[in-house]
Amino acid sequence: MGKRIALLTSGGDCAGLNAVIRAVVRRAHHAYDFDVIGIRKGTHGLLARPVEIEELKPGHDDTALLRLGGTVLGTTNKGDPFAFPMPDGTLKDRSEEIVEGFRALDLDALIGVGGDGSLKILSRLALQGGIPFVGIPKTIDNDVARTERAVGYTTAVATATEALDRLQPTAASHDRLMVLELMGRDAGHIAIAAGVAGGADVVLIPEIDWTLQIVVRRVKDLRVAGRNFALIVAAEAARPSDVDGSAVEAAGGIGHWLGVELGRLTGAETRVTVLGHVQRGGVPNAEDRLLGSALGVHAVDLVAQGRTGRMVAWWNRDVVDVPLEEVVAVPSVVDPQGPVVRTARGLGICLGDTL
Amino acid sequence: MGKRIALLTSGGDCAGLNAVIRAVVRRAHHAYDFDVIGIRKGTHGLLARPVEIEELKPGHDDTALLRLGGTVLGTTNKGDPFAFPMPDGTLKDRSEEIVEGFRALDLDALIGVGGDGSLKILSRLALQGGIPFVGIPKTIDNDVARTERAVGYTTAVATATEALDRLQPTAASHDRLMVLELMGRDAGHIAIAAGVAGGADVVLIPEIDWTLQIVVRRVKDLRVAGRNFALIVAAEAARPSDVDGSAVEAAGGIGHWLGVELGRLTGAETRVTVLGHVQRGGVPNAEDRLLGSALGVHAVDLVAQGRTGRMVAWWNRDVVDVPLEEVVAVPSVVDPQGPVVRTARGLGICLGDTL
Amino acid sequence: MGKRIALLTSGGDCAGLNAVIRAVVRRAHHAYDFDVIGIRKGTHGLLARPVEIEELKPGHDDTALLRLGGTVLGTTNKGDPFAFPMPDGTLKDRSEEIVEGFRALDLDALIGVGGDGSLKILSRLALQGGIPFVGIPKTIDNDVARTERAVGYTTAVATATEALDRLQPTAASHDRLMVLELMGRDAGHIAIAAGVAGGADVVLIPEIDWTLQIVVRRVKDLRVAGRNFALIVAAEAARPSDVDGSAVEAAGGIGHWLGVELGRLTGAETRVTVLGHVQRGGVPNAEDRLLGSALGVHAVDLVAQGRTGRMVAWWNRDVVDVPLEEVVAVPSVVDPQGPVVRTARGLGICLGDTL
Amino acid sequence: MGKRIALLTSGGDCAGLNAVIRAVVRRAHHAYDFDVIGIRKGTHGLLARPVEIEELKPGHDDTALLRLGGTVLGTTNKGDPFAFPMPDGTLKDRSEEIVEGFRALDLDALIGVGGDGSLKILSRLALQGGIPFVGIPKTIDNDVARTERAVGYTTAVATATEALDRLQPTAASHDRLMVLELMGRDAGHIAIAAGVAGGADVVLIPEIDWTLQIVVRRVKDLRVAGRNFALIVAAEAARPSDVDGSAVEAAGGIGHWLGVELGRLTGAETRVTVLGHVQRGGVPNAEDRLLGSALGVHAVDLVAQGRTGRMVAWWNRDVVDVPLEEVVAVPSVVDPQGPVVRTARGLGICLGDTL
Repeated sequence: MGKRIALLTSGGDCAGLNAVIRAVVRRAHHAYDFDVIGIRKGTHGLLARPVEIEELKPGHDDTALLRLGGTVLGTTNKGDPFAFPMPDGTLKDRSEEIVEGFRALDLDALIGVGGDGSLKILSRLALQGGIPFVGIPKTIDNDVARTERAVGYTTAVATATEALDRLQPTAASHDRLMVLELMGRDAGHIAIAAGVAGGADVVLIPEIDWTLQIVVRRVKDLRVAGRNFALIVAAEAARPSDVDGSAVEAAGGIGHWLGVELGRLTGAETRVTVLGHVQRGGVPNAEDRLLGSALGVHAVDLVAQGRTGRMVAWWNRDVVDVPLEEVVAVPSVVDPQGPVVRTARGLGICLGDTL
Repeated sequence: MGKRIALLTSGGDCAGLNAVIRAVVRRAHHAYDFDVIGIRKGTHGLLARPVEIEELKPGHDDTALLRLGGTVLGTTNKGDPFAFPMPDGTLKDRSEEIVEGFRALDLDALIGVGGDGSLKILSRLALQGGIPFVGIPKTIDNDVARTERAVGYTTAVATATEALDRLQPTAASHDRLMVLELMGRDAGHIAIAAGVAGGADVVLIPEIDWTLQIVVRRVKDLRVAGRNFALIVAAEAARPSDVDGSAVEAAGGIGHWLGVELGRLTGAETRVTVLGHVQRGGVPNAEDRLLGSALGVHAVDLVAQGRTGRMVAWWNRDVVDVPLEEVVAVPSVVDPQGPVVRTARGLGICLGDTL
Repeated sequence: MGKRIALLTSGGDCAGLNAVIRAVVRRAHHAYDFDVIGIRKGTHGLLARPVEIEELKPGHDDTALLRLGGTVLGTTNKGDPFAFPMPDGTLKDRSEEIVEGFRALDLDALIGVGGDGSLKILSRLALQGGIPFVGIPKTIDNDVARTERAVGYTTAVATATEALDRLQPTAASHDRLMVLELMGRDAGHIAIAAGVAGGADVVLIPEIDWTLQIVVRRVKDLRVAGRNFALIVAAEAARPSDVDGSAVEAAGGIGHWLGVELGRLTGAETRVTVLGHVQRGGVPNAEDRLLGSALGVHAVDLVAQGRTGRMVAWWNRDVVDVPLEEVVAVPSVVDPQGPVVRTARGLGICLGDTL
Repeated sequence: MGKRIALLTSGGDCAGLNAVIRAVVRRAHHAYDFDVIGIRKGTHGLLARPVEIEELKPGHDDTALLRLGGTVLGTTNKGDPFAFPMPDGTLKDRSEEIVEGFRALDLDALIGVGGDGSLKILSRLALQGGIPFVGIPKTIDNDVARTERAVGYTTAVATATEALDRLQPTAASHDRLMVLELMGRDAGHIAIAAGVAGGADVVLIPEIDWTLQIVVRRVKDLRVAGRNFALIVAAEAARPSDVDGSAVEAAGGIGHWLGVELGRLTGAETRVTVLGHVQRGGVPNAEDRLLGSALGVHAVDLVAQGRTGRMVAWWNRDVVDVPLEEVVAVPSVVDPQGPVVRTARGLGICLGDTL
């Protein structure tokens, strides 16, 4: 008889989540005749009473899911269930409520789609509830370890690159310095990839120590060499090592701070764009649809084979799976000696550490 | 014998300017054997000594110009030549320097591409220099009178609509209220058009008096009716009539102010995007290429016919031309009784004046 | 008490139909409390027994309709009900069956979205059934009279222009002559607009008499002048006046015929693309969403006001309505003296009638 | 003192070639002060007398190269120099002419961008001329061995996926069976990847034996299950194993043949799109720009290090290089047991070999 599995998406949304959902539902029904219960809004759907769930069945119109950003299950990135922020300001362990929710659903397994933080929480909850768990990595930041790519990353890079494509002609038309702040709370993957692909002159990421002084020098050098515009990309977490970080916060983030400082120190006309949430949404690109489909299919296969406690991943041209404990140990950040940084330096892009 | 005409782009850049340049150069050479002198950076190229110019000839690779944002001639929106900001902080009339520049070029006519402000200045300069002038309207804001569309407008609407397309799925996935601030210093054309096309729930424009109170009510009503997200679009010039405008400035603009206020008053999780300069650049859409080509061709025809002192325009399914003085009198703003506002209301979009 | 109206989409699908449906449903419910019955697959839904219908209600997730190509109601372009092709090869008048279908629905009015052919049939059916009718124009070909634009046209032009954007670099890289065949059964609107916007060298449309001889001359002249590639755009209905049309049919259409003939007569390496049905689908552009929304709202208003027997339209910067009989008399084709043709000639594009 | 290296692009063009050119020029000048000679039109530029070359220097406006499809150097896929088709119909070994061309340029190394066929020819020519050679893999077909991705592949997949995105809504609106023929002369990589990403129901590739009979069954089964449309993707090289291949050629290719046969055997209304050369052009996606940049930088590094006779590649999350002889031995086709095929089967996509 078929198993009964639950599926939820957790943490910040991104492109390709609906491709994962579609793949899980198709694989579960067509290959194994499993029932799939969708839990709404991540673990929040299990904190609600009654729990917020819906049965997921394959439909004739599921093609549209491939093109749809976000997640039709909803998600949340508010509230670690083990230390949940209560209205009175205190933190409360609500994990047992979620586990009760799981139990009421009478599940054989749980498949959770999330970043490293969400996967850690979900696997702990599943352990507590005695529910076999399989994780699927997603995050625009691409900082989940042990997978080459997480769902949502390449679409975010594409969107950020397209923003540079739009900013470059207006920068050149007006002899302007354009600063683009991109998402990336811990890792600069989006910033360095989009910076290379979009033709940035300077890229600032948290993995590489950089100084305002060197950035200013590079901008001035470009002007002296006859270049009338400049494109500066900064990951939101990038901070200068020669200036007190509180100044950046006071300015409203690294983008706005750079805009003011570079304008002041170079005399260039400067404009700032904080790309923000448009990086999350949008039509998923082919890569994220393919990745999400591959990972979703494999996650169901793992459940069917009883190989749980694992995260599915893309590695060396194949779909694989790895123990969850290896994944959640340490985030994957940009390797300062890796191929993307080497390419950036090879193109003459300034990373703020040397001219 | 062929005439000698100069071409410049002035004011903020936008999509389609290079289609105008391509059309002017092609028409001038193929039909009339005119020489075309491109002046760099708007009137600034004529303040420089030597003047910054380049001869423009039709080329085999001019197809690429159709796809290229910005303006290959460069532009500027700093500095009215009649009251030019000098380094010492004073304003100086530098119009005679520009007129000298014109004279040194030995021109038969000047074609200028600009918004209403630029066209006014250019026609005044041309008059002072005794140079026949033809204007071509461009502005993402679409606030030039006597033309249905200015070059650059529809691409900006498309870009803004695409931003809403990206924000909606992430808003729905997270039960969020998304605020999108769009360009529009005097007119709300981009905001109302993109708001209708992108499915906004609330659109705030300077042409319609609106209150924070009504916006809050609408957001609350949507929640009560079961809608888990909301999309709020605001033109940068929109200001509430029930709150002192200085609070908006202090918050860093209407978008950020709405984000804080709506979050506070509705309890909704709120995110703000200020789309900024990505609205200017990007690949021009087919409409702006077609419009720019049509206006560029007609502008050269007017010069050839000696019918100067006019602006070319799109009106009632045709390319026409109108006296410049009629154009620069009053900007074209959104008609509160016009078809776009009626459509917005017809769809149930809240414009902040009534529920 | 509220009326009961039916809505159907008829003829070839296009971008923006779902924006029309969304607007009709929103306006009908929010402003008038009308019930809206959606009829599936155009009039075919009324030939089926039971009739294929669904009640349409405004939903919280109707934003997605704006971004969705095609029509969620389905459509058909097979079978004039007055001369319906039967399995045995005969034609049968099945209009009375449809009228019965209408009657069973107990309707106060019918809103039909279609091209000129569909609108003609629908208005005749409605007359026969005694049902007040309002038409909304849609067609990628833009050949509906009395409206500046039909829903779906500008998205089709954008898609066709994008195809030229993709073909030009590969043509230039390989010194190739690229032929692009675009839709347009009676009118060359898409071909001439995309040809101008996409930088075509030659555009062939049914409204202008052209010869293969002149096209060959133009291609050879371009080569002599040093241009290594050429872009030829042809509307599917374009036929040479110096060659027997049956040769075109035998070659599989104008695109393939031109490819063979131009390759043979100019010696150039030639490639042919027949863009086909990708012109219909795709994410509707902002313009088609705005137009579809405006027309949908106004159509419901006409029903509410009892002003039926009319088609809604866009004309001179406004939403208007016109008597249906004026619409269906004659299709709107490209005006050989109109602004788009003048612009094409002004840019030096060859239309096959003169060099 | 700096070396003197030549760069050429060879074979069919694709997206990302200009990113390669930009990277080679930037790296050569900034890091090593090498001169870079661009050879025009692949090896054809060396058959011409005088040879067609241009010196390539880094420019202030090289950002535009990232966004430009095709190759600014031109390319060709006509004519193996070792068996060159002469006007009289004979084949002639013209390799010595090319070698002479190399010698006249006084080169220290040659960098060639090509598919496996081109790389084989180029390395043989370089050997004959005694010129150290480094290859960079490019091909939309992604059939170059020893690299995970060749430049141009992911953009082609994106374009093909977008075509499916456009076809699906029109297929569903009209209850149609849509056949899409995609490029892929020897390998089905584009077809299977785009088929998965774009939601195809059936994907036919040359690597998997398939029968018309099974495809017909699947289409009928979909209808029976209530699905009103179907999307069929076929690589151009796919051929049925139950029908004589000459029938496919006679029909004008696999797409048109499937259209006729499926229409006949299933009774479904069928439409065929042969996507053709639009798959080559277009704005390169971020992935191809990044890949092209990484490979271009590394190729120059190899020259500087004297490590020639190698092809640069992307492998296991890094830029690497491999002996050319290993590359050209066998093309990389779709692995019938690999992750993409498994994903396709996991989603329930029919590959024509089993239902």
